[in-house]
Amino acid sequence: MIKKMALTQKSANKIFGGWQKVFSHKSAELKCAMNFGVFLPAQSETEKCPVIYWLSGLTCTEQNFVTKAGAQRYAAEKGVILVAPDTSPRECNIEGEDESWDFGTGAGFYVDATEEKWKENYRMYSYVTKELPQLISENFPANGKQSIMGHSMGGHGALICALKNPGMYTSVSAFSPICNPTQCPWGQKAFTGYLGSDRATWQGYDATELVKSYSGPALDILIDQGSEDGFLKDGQLLPDNLVAACAKASMAVDYRLQPGYDHSYYFIATFVGDHIAKHAEALK
Amino acid sequence: MIKKMALTQKSANKIFGGWQKVFSHKSAELKCAMNFGVFLPAQSETEKCPVIYWLSGLTCTEQNFVTKAGAQRYAAEKGVILVAPDTSPRECNIEGEDESWDFGTGAGFYVDATEEKWKENYRMYSYVTKELPQLISENFPANGKQSIMGHSMGGHGALICALKNPGMYTSVSAFSPICNPTQCPWGQKAFTGYLGSDRATWQGYDATELVKSYSGPALDILIDQGSEDGFLKDGQLLPDNLVAACAKASMAVDYRLQPGYDHSYYFIATFVGDHIAKHAEALK
Repeated sequence: MIKKMALTQKSANKIFGGWQKVFSHKSAELKCAMNFGVFLPAQSETEKCPVIYWLSGLTCTEQNFVTKAGAQRYAAEKGVILVAPDTSPRECNIEGEDESWDFGTGAGFYVDATEEKWKENYRMYSYVTKELPQLISENFPANGKQSIMGHSMGGHGALICALKNPGMYTSVSAFSPICNPTQCPWGQKAFTGYLGSDRATWQGYDATELVKSYSGPALDILIDQGSEDGFLKDGQLLPDNLVAACAKASMAVDYRLQPGYDHSYYFIATFVGDHIAKHAEALK
Repeated sequence: MIKKMALTQKSANKIFGGWQKVFSHKSAELKCAMNFGVFLPAQSETEKCPVIYWLSGLTCTEQNFVTKAGAQRYAAEKGVILVAPDTSPRECNIEGEDESWDFGTGAGFYVDATEEKWKENYRMYSYVTKELPQLISENFPANGKQSIMGHSMGGHGALICALKNPGMYTSVSAFSPICNPTQCPWGQKAFTGYLGSDRATWQGYDATELVKSYSGPALDILIDQGSEDGFLKDGQLLPDNLVAACAKASMAVDYRLQPGYDHSYYFIATFVGDHIAKHAEALK
C-alpha cells in the first residue's frame, strides 16, 4: 500500500477566478521540508486539467514565479494547473550549503548528486520528475498530461527533464536557459560539486549533449532569450550551442532572441503568455 | 527660473515592449530621498501619453506595485504611463518613525502633517499632488492628462486626491480602500499622530466626508473590494459608508464586491486590467 503523502497548506489566495496556493511537505527524495506553489484554475473545480511545471533559477524559492511572473492570468484562460517547486533542498545542515549563491541552497541544478556530501539530499532531478508529479496527481485534479518550462538554471532543468524522459512531457520551453552547463562556469561549478570530477557523467544533465542522442516524440522546443541579458554576454547560457546541436539532430527549436530584454522576471512576464499558450495547445 | 529637479535612475528593465524604471530624487516636500517607479510604454517613445498614478498601501515601497501587480501589460496595450511612488518619507530620524507598521515609515497616509514632530517631512499629500506630477511632466513624455488609483491606504489616498482637487484627475479608482478613515482604527491612529486631536481637521482627508461637499466634474469612481478581505471584516475599510455618502450626494460609484478575494496583490492583479482600461478610456 502506497501511503499518500501529507501536504500542509501554507497560503491560499484567489486570483483570476482560480486559486494560488502554496503547500509544504516532507520530501522523501530530498529528506527535508519543501514548499511548492500550485495555481488551480476555476476549470479544475469541475474537470481534470493538464499541468505545466515551472522550474525557477538560481537563488529563487517557489515565491518568485508565484508573485512576479503574472502567469496565473494565462493559466486561468487556458484551464491549466501551474506547479512551481523550490530550487533546492533547504536546511539540511550540510557543511557549506549556504556559502554560495550558485551552489547548494537555492541552486540544486535539477541533478541527482553522487558526491558523498550531497547525495542524500540533493536529488532535485528525481524530486521534479518523480516525487512531485506523484504528489500532484494524488492531491490535485490533474488529467495526466504535463509540460515543463523554466528560467535560467530552471530552463536547463526543464530541457533536461524533457530530453531525458521521452514522452513524459508533452512540450517543453525555457526562458534564458543554461543550455550547455558542461561548458559554462555555473554548470562546471555545480556539476563538479554534485557529480564529481568525471566529466562523462556530466553529459547526462546537459541539454546540448542530450539533444544529440534524443529519440522520442517531437519536442518542438521554444526558447526566449533577452539580447541584453548579462549572463548571455558572460557565456553562462550558450544558446547557440544548443541551437546548433538541434540543427544537427534535426530537432525543431524556436529560438527567439528578444531585443532589449534582460534576465529578469520583467522579461518572463512579457513572454510567459506565449509559452503557456503553446503548452496549452500541445496539452489539448 | 525654476530649477529642474535631478533624478537618479536606479533600475531599468524592458517589459511588454516598454520600460519599467525606478528613479530616486531628493524631495523638496519631504526633505529626504524618495524612490518612485515609472512604466513607460513603447508609445511614449514617439508621442506624449497620459499618466495613471498608483498609490500603495501600508508597509509598501514603490516595488510592490512594480513587481507584483502585472499592470505593465495593460498599460502597454493602452499606451499609458504608470507612476508608483513610495508610501512615506524614509530615514528622517524622527523618534518613533519605525516603531509601527501602520504609522510613520511606510504609512504616510497621504496627508500633510501638522503635528510638530512630523510636519517637516510627512507631507505625502503635497508630494503626490504637486511635487511628483511636476517631476513627471518635466522629465517624461506626459501629455498633461492624469488619473489616479491605489490600494488600501493608497486607495484612500487616490480618493482624497481626486475629491480635493476637482478637475485635476480625469478619473479615480481604488482597490479595497480605507473609505472612512476618521471612523476606523488605522485612520484614527494616523490622523491623531499626523494631524492632532482636533477631529474637524481630519475630515479634509476622509473620502466619505469629502464626497458630501464635492463640487466638480463627474468622477465616476470605480472600487473593487474582496469579500474575504480580513481588513474589511475588521472594520478598517468601511466601503458601505462611502457608497451611502455617494448615493446621498448623487455621485456615481461602481462598487464591486468580488467574492472570494482577499486584500493581496493577487486580488489587485486580477482586476487591475479593468481599472487601467477604465482610466485609459477616460484619458483619451
